[in-house]
Amino acid sequence: MKQTPFTTFLFGGDWNPEQWPKEIWLKDMQILSNAQINEATINVFSWAQLQSSEDDYDFSTLDEIVRLLTQYNFHIVLATSTGALPAWMAKKYSDVARTDFYGRHHRYGERHNACPNSPTFQKYSARLAGKLAERYGYLECVVCWHISNEYGGACYCEHCAKAFRVWLKNKYRTLDALNEAWYTHFWGHTFYDWDEIVPPNDLGDAIGEDHTTLSGLSVDYRRFSSDSLLNNLISEKEAIRRFDPVTPITTNMMGTYKGLDYFKWAKELDIVSWDSYPAYDTPASLIAMKHDLMRGLKNGRPFMLMEQTPSQQNWQPYNAVKQPGQMRELSYQAIAHGADTIQYFQLRQSRGGTEKFHSAVISHADHDATRILRETAQLGQELAAYGTQFMNGQTKAKVAIIFDWDNYWAFEYSSGPNVELKYVDQVHRYYAALYRENVAVDMIPTDLTADDLGKYDLVIAPVLMMVKPGVTDTIEKFVTGGGTFVTTFLSGISDEHDNVIMGGYPGPFRKLCGIWAEEIDALPPKENVNLLFSDHAVSGSIVANISHLEGAQALAVYEDNVFYKGAPVVSVNSFGQGKAYYIGTVLDEKGMDLFVDRLIEERHLPHYPAPKGVEITVRSYDDYQLYFVINNTKEMRNMDTSRFEGKINLLNGAPISSQTILRPYDVLIVRD
Amino acid sequence: MKQTPFTTFLFGGDWNPEQWPKEIWLKDMQILSNAQINEATINVFSWAQLQSSEDDYDFSTLDEIVRLLTQYNFHIVLATSTGALPAWMAKKYSDVARTDFYGRHHRYGERHNACPNSPTFQKYSARLAGKLAERYGYLECVVCWHISNEYGGACYCEHCAKAFRVWLKNKYRTLDALNEAWYTHFWGHTFYDWDEIVPPNDLGDAIGEDHTTLSGLSVDYRRFSSDSLLNNLISEKEAIRRFDPVTPITTNMMGTYKGLDYFKWAKELDIVSWDSYPAYDTPASLIAMKHDLMRGLKNGRPFMLMEQTPSQQNWQPYNAVKQPGQMRELSYQAIAHGADTIQYFQLRQSRGGTEKFHSAVISHADHDATRILRETAQLGQELAAYGTQFMNGQTKAKVAIIFDWDNYWAFEYSSGPNVELKYVDQVHRYYAALYRENVAVDMIPTDLTADDLGKYDLVIAPVLMMVKPGVTDTIEKFVTGGGTFVTTFLSGISDEHDNVIMGGYPGPFRKLCGIWAEEIDALPPKENVNLLFSDHAVSGSIVANISHLEGAQALAVYEDNVFYKGAPVVSVNSFGQGKAYYIGTVLDEKGMDLFVDRLIEERHLPHYPAPKGVEITVRSYDDYQLYFVINNTKEMRNMDTSRFEGKINLLNGAPISSQTILRPYDVLIVRD
Amino acid sequence: MKQTPFTTFLFGGDWNPEQWPKEIWLKDMQILSNAQINEATINVFSWAQLQSSEDDYDFSTLDEIVRLLTQYNFHIVLATSTGALPAWMAKKYSDVARTDFYGRHHRYGERHNACPNSPTFQKYSARLAGKLAERYGYLECVVCWHISNEYGGACYCEHCAKAFRVWLKNKYRTLDALNEAWYTHFWGHTFYDWDEIVPPNDLGDAIGEDHTTLSGLSVDYRRFSSDSLLNNLISEKEAIRRFDPVTPITTNMMGTYKGLDYFKWAKELDIVSWDSYPAYDTPASLIAMKHDLMRGLKNGRPFMLMEQTPSQQNWQPYNAVKQPGQMRELSYQAIAHGADTIQYFQLRQSRGGTEKFHSAVISHADHDATRILRETAQLGQELAAYGTQFMNGQTKAKVAIIFDWDNYWAFEYSSGPNVELKYVDQVHRYYAALYRENVAVDMIPTDLTADDLGKYDLVIAPVLMMVKPGVTDTIEKFVTGGGTFVTTFLSGISDEHDNVIMGGYPGPFRKLCGIWAEEIDALPPKENVNLLFSDHAVSGSIVANISHLEGAQALAVYEDNVFYKGAPVVSVNSFGQGKAYYIGTVLDEKGMDLFVDRLIEERHLPHYPAPKGVEITVRSYDDYQLYFVINNTKEMRNMDTSRFEGKINLLNGAPISSQTILRPYDVLIVRD
Repeated sequence: MKQTPFTTFLFGGDWNPEQWPKEIWLKDMQILSNAQINEATINVFSWAQLQSSEDDYDFSTLDEIVRLLTQYNFHIVLATSTGALPAWMAKKYSDVARTDFYGRHHRYGERHNACPNSPTFQKYSARLAGKLAERYGYLECVVCWHISNEYGGACYCEHCAKAFRVWLKNKYRTLDALNEAWYTHFWGHTFYDWDEIVPPNDLGDAIGEDHTTLSGLSVDYRRFSSDSLLNNLISEKEAIRRFDPVTPITTNMMGTYKGLDYFKWAKELDIVSWDSYPAYDTPASLIAMKHDLMRGLKNGRPFMLMEQTPSQQNWQPYNAVKQPGQMRELSYQAIAHGADTIQYFQLRQSRGGTEKFHSAVISHADHDATRILRETAQLGQELAAYGTQFMNGQTKAKVAIIFDWDNYWAFEYSSGPNVELKYVDQVHRYYAALYRENVAVDMIPTDLTADDLGKYDLVIAPVLMMVKPGVTDTIEKFVTGGGTFVTTFLSGISDEHDNVIMGGYPGPFRKLCGIWAEEIDALPPKENVNLLFSDHAVSGSIVANISHLEGAQALAVYEDNVFYKGAPVVSVNSFGQGKAYYIGTVLDEKGMDLFVDRLIEERHLPHYPAPKGVEITVRSYDDYQLYFVINNTKEMRNMDTSRFEGKINLLNGAPISSQTILRPYDVLIVRD
Repeated sequence: MKQTPFTTFLFGGDWNPEQWPKEIWLKDMQILSNAQINEATINVFSWAQLQSSEDDYDFSTLDEIVRLLTQYNFHIVLATSTGALPAWMAKKYSDVARTDFYGRHHRYGERHNACPNSPTFQKYSARLAGKLAERYGYLECVVCWHISNEYGGACYCEHCAKAFRVWLKNKYRTLDALNEAWYTHFWGHTFYDWDEIVPPNDLGDAIGEDHTTLSGLSVDYRRFSSDSLLNNLISEKEAIRRFDPVTPITTNMMGTYKGLDYFKWAKELDIVSWDSYPAYDTPASLIAMKHDLMRGLKNGRPFMLMEQTPSQQNWQPYNAVKQPGQMRELSYQAIAHGADTIQYFQLRQSRGGTEKFHSAVISHADHDATRILRETAQLGQELAAYGTQFMNGQTKAKVAIIFDWDNYWAFEYSSGPNVELKYVDQVHRYYAALYRENVAVDMIPTDLTADDLGKYDLVIAPVLMMVKPGVTDTIEKFVTGGGTFVTTFLSGISDEHDNVIMGGYPGPFRKLCGIWAEEIDALPPKENVNLLFSDHAVSGSIVANISHLEGAQALAVYEDNVFYKGAPVVSVNSFGQGKAYYIGTVLDEKGMDLFVDRLIEERHLPHYPAPKGVEITVRSYDDYQLYFVINNTKEMRNMDTSRFEGKINLLNGAPISSQTILRPYDVLIVRD
Repeated sequence: MKQTPFTTFLFGGDWNPEQWPKEIWLKDMQILSNAQINEATINVFSWAQLQSSEDDYDFSTLDEIVRLLTQYNFHIVLATSTGALPAWMAKKYSDVARTDFYGRHHRYGERHNACPNSPTFQKYSARLAGKLAERYGYLECVVCWHISNEYGGACYCEHCAKAFRVWLKNKYRTLDALNEAWYTHFWGHTFYDWDEIVPPNDLGDAIGEDHTTLSGLSVDYRRFSSDSLLNNLISEKEAIRRFDPVTPITTNMMGTYKGLDYFKWAKELDIVSWDSYPAYDTPASLIAMKHDLMRGLKNGRPFMLMEQTPSQQNWQPYNAVKQPGQMRELSYQAIAHGADTIQYFQLRQSRGGTEKFHSAVISHADHDATRILRETAQLGQELAAYGTQFMNGQTKAKVAIIFDWDNYWAFEYSSGPNVELKYVDQVHRYYAALYRENVAVDMIPTDLTADDLGKYDLVIAPVLMMVKPGVTDTIEKFVTGGGTFVTTFLSGISDEHDNVIMGGYPGPFRKLCGIWAEEIDALPPKENVNLLFSDHAVSGSIVANISHLEGAQALAVYEDNVFYKGAPVVSVNSFGQGKAYYIGTVLDEKGMDLFVDRLIEERHLPHYPAPKGVEITVRSYDDYQLYFVINNTKEMRNMDTSRFEGKINLLNGAPISSQTILRPYDVLIVRD
């Protein structure tokens, strides 16, 4: 089943030859070809070089680059260069620059620097995309369009204010509807004219960077900002499509990046791609979750790993090098979770600029006798040999976790009850507990139908505070039909405008969960609460719901001698053919493991016991399955591999024994 | 002795029906009436609803609200709604918005958002207050005016700059006087024209948010800002008085809030009211101190507890719920210290806006079967039964602690000697030590006469750095007449312009205290200094004075092998019939307790030994006294109550035994 | 050999009589004269008093001050007062104020507040300097000019932007050269017109306060800012020289202050002076290093200690008083390292202004019976007796450490590999290890010739990331000729534009050091790496190079079971007649001591073993040497002084025994 637009496993990455004299270009071709690199992402930051004034375009250098790559049989991912403005444009048309959260109009600098609602930017960015498509779109070697780069940020200028008002009129039609949706009678904010509405930055309704007077206003500004940038993408896409109707189009995303509703964005893309930059202490489960989220954006279709660093980054506080084998391990982890390309930022390390200490395939040493190149070449050989076998796989998860950007925004704008509540962290706690048992997970949006959910045994909605129209129905149908649903404290609180759904928490999930959460206590740091969960002592932190069972059965109760001792904290409710679990606190790891064990047992969820730190992920194909067995640690792991005994490790052709020693960062890929 | 303008014990709080459909209003009336709630504070944030443009006022909704409340026999505290600007006004008249400390003119948002010197704001706020008074002032049920809401903040716009210059001309008359007062020859700041003076924000003479080039300038800007907002209040008050000459007028204050000189403000109010919002870890003594400060604002007259939360807040980092009984306990603590009303923010919890997680009497559950409502109703019953007995009490303190906003500002603008010196903290350390022994305290300003002080045995002036004209005389007379005075390091440093009083610290108190503090060492964190105090080893921190006795007797000396070993650190000087103590460091709790024990013994101060965490506070009436025995802890306390044996606990009618078990947050009120 | 322009040992400091009534002036003269104070630095912040409008100058007060000082035989250091603007000028000519890093144009306040490229400021500052020189330059008692005060900070206004473009044109001639130097193809920054270049502040290419998009741009702006302020100095200097061709000219510097390239500045000064303000926890070695740096600015010539505090400061978080003897100890430490004056800020403590808690010779006690005055007078007597013997000494160091402001800027703008890398800290670690063994050190710039280096046995270049043209040659010649060179990780990375020198780290030092540093790992906090160094276990932190020997010999290797176990981390390479050491991590103190011991032994470096915390510093004169033996601690030290046995302690005339008890902060000065 073909899901990927590419026929070759793309192995390459960003290449910026415009930073180098031409003698270096040839050298690069040789070194990279030797390492089996077959792809280059080019033209990412060349706008200023391509267009030196309003009407002066010069593609000669890019022509040469494309010619050279073609000669060396490279596939090309062609960027549109609109991720950073030319200085002349910022000088001549100040509307292209952004006004920041603090109300300051910027002059010129950095990247991600264009106001998405600037008429000048809109005009010239689309024009450039069109010119590129006209010139290069027909080329065989151009296998993918890469629009802009890591879209993000927001602008608060007058152009944006005006566009926001238009966006609002389209959404609400009347100011009455808007006043109602935004709950503007709070703090006397009633609006009588659309022009009274100003962007909610630090000179408006923001309360610091994290909070806001009116959640409806600020969540809408988030939606509008995401849409504004998406409109930029669409505008470039349309310009490309006028000349190139077929080459797939993507933009490189950033995992759980807060600013953009990637589920909405993915609908405009032919293929999802993303940039994975774990820090030295990012847990493997969080990396995996982000891969699964990216795979989920287009309902399970494979994605491109558009960027990863061969070794160290430069913009973290502590930019540790990747250990020997670690880059390969992370690459296979990406493939296991749905990546059908492996690409680096970047192929040659820059001599200057803020990223000069960011590693690259070809380092400042300027030759190929480096560890990075040896490891790259090893991976290149493996991908050349087996890459196509990895492609077009599917993840057959029985478990889905809901991830929703509207909720992300609303949840984190909430003032109270506890400053430590962060959306990705709360979602990740559930993901991580399943990951520890190697249970496959899909990350899903909220706009699915009950039919869509039909393939899952279990749907988890951590802290789904904002419940948009239709969601409750869908979930109730899923459970009625036999599904298991899990949700938590602070779910079911508010509607799509972040106005509270009255009648007792968890609002629309109250009947489903058979529980009423009367109060949500906030626990200060180090003031955890003890629970008794299936005869085990575990603890909760951050928040502690004080709930009443309304049909549900308590699975864990508070043990502490505080006033809520004995109150239910984990409960399950039978509903139709299914069950709904409700978790009223942030369980510790032991509590989460007990809970996941119960779910696995109850729903017979496929899972793969393994030593600590060893991930087993399955990718399915028309005729076979691949088991990716990955040691995510820098230690040896001794593993019972009897389930694979006699099968072949794809990467070395050797049969698997009943017991296997996994070296640090070792990877087995068992074909079955 | 009637001191309170109310004949009923007001039990109610903020009610914002304009946020709700009318069917909810009736429901609220029923639930609230059942809980014995008899008061509603309304119209706090309705400006935008009342006035939709320059000349369009619509009071119909407010009429309905008033009518409904009247029908249900509610007392009304009527706010003027001027605490948050209408958006249309900010759009049309940008002068109404503030320019912030960072020099940025705001557009529209939040609340507390009006420039106090904006002509537009001044015009429309007074006009609205007048219209409200004209329309509702005559009503019996309107028992109090509530002007604006939680006045605070500051503006640095050109209107303020101009008004500041006028304020300065009135104060100094000549630039010579101003240059002298501000010590402008420092860093070459001599002013030759009033227009050269700019507000001391981050674009002016501020050194970060906490410090300043010229203390005189910045303290004056604090005074001016406090006066500017006070002028707003006076202007609304005058508008009200044109139509309603009798209904008492208040505004809700905020305890030790730094921005406003509440002693000055209180002179313009008929009754003091304040909003008490302790965090989960605020010590009971600090809450008590703030109540006493609020009582002190009008020389001991009872105050309104205008706002407290029934359970949790939303804007703290950790918004813990109040434990069972804790809200009642905090309410009685307020009454014990002088509150003659108990009011909540708010009666119904908002569905939206930044405070949606702030608890209210009626929660999002939207019914009365909640713990909050049960506890509210219990308190309501008690207040209905005994409320009037609590009212019009007096606190007969023999001890006074000076609290002075000018000093607050000057002290915290000081650069050096130690960044950890905070005014409220230093004052609270003395208050807390007395509180631990249940010694009643009045919080007093500096502008009292020796006669005013005559009723006290003991006056304490912690870190009274700025000594304004007349203060030394008053205190010397008080001591001469037999009073005991206590002061500390960093007292007696500067005059009303924060210019140092020459001749050796503690300047004007040097003779009185019989000591010369030659040096004030700053102790870094964890570098405490050991003392020997009445044969006990205690420690000092933050600062350590190196002093010379000039007639005083040393009570404690440094023990450490630093150069100041043996130097006096606690001393007492006989002066006239009285004594003056001087404390040269920040004593630890043990040191403070030893010191307070000495004062109690020496002055036979009334005090009430009790178990740790149990407060005993006495309120006196014409014919009786009430002893409030309050367990401030969430633990049981076993208490010797033999002093009350046989007397009646007002709250349950039962006689007191010689030993009493106080449950967590338990309260006894013994009438004697 | 006369190196100092003064014939008297100047003992005095800042005196601001314009802050005081005239009766105080006389009192000061008496108290100060009694303490043997013989110098006053005046007119530091009097601009607003001297010039009340464009054309109104009034020198009458300054005349009186000069007359009085002359009468009391004081030497005068005459400041030009241009370190703080008059308010009238800021009001009338807004170009004199600065635009800050955040893009905000300031109004008026603080000091260091003039835009260096403001035409108004340039005109009036030079005019004032000229007028002062004309009026006072001829006076015998005026022994030194003190231009402005503690130059520093930066401006980002349009005047600066324009001046920056001129500066850039002068430097680069063509935009092609600039684009190449700044590596502008990175993030599409190609410039086509000089006017497109904007200052790299927060509205431009800065990435926070610490980082930048283009290092070349930001380092150039640092150079330009340093030059702009230097042009202000030169302009005042030239105005002075028109009337006073001989009196030496200085400005007071600030040690390792980052903003100004003091090596470049010193060329414009007749004598270096600086202000030493250690915090309570500043190590003695860091104070010493700064003295040595100041001495190094003019190639070893003595400097003025223009400011130190007699006791406490006010602007640190914790402003501890100086212990008894500590001020004297710090004064002799300054002299030992090259100070030929001892001056205080200030002679009389201000009554107001932000520095009112900054100690002074005459404190707020306003008399001379203070510890500070006793200690000042003791020092004054000693300086009166022996001061001229201290003057014109030389430090004969065999060791030099390179300190380079260009590198300071480039190194700290680097994004990655580890946020904990700070330039002064890294340099100080080498200095401190030598200091612990009392090895004399010169701090040197990079623009020396091999001849200049000839007098050293050892040259150390810690983290010399930026290697400017000629530096490698000079160092190679030095080593070829028998010198020992030491450098570290992150040295030899980039050229004068901060573009990487290709071919493998440490680039230009690779051949010299015989090593290739393939990778630079970043170690997170607490993840140190263990080494084996000459059979001792030591540890490294922050970064860990993974290197390959290319002729060098490993002295220490990694011991940890990480992938780089066994890789060389300390190595030495023979090169010509000399040796080059390369250190690939941040060694712990034990590691540094082992390394320095090896260097001492190998190069027979003069060193003076002493108890911990005791410094021995030698200053050499034509006919004699002085050994300054200084107990930097507040504890007693028992010291073997047999090397000085029988010689005389200059300060008390007593002969030295073989064993000496040094009291806390004790000082011996042995003349030999």
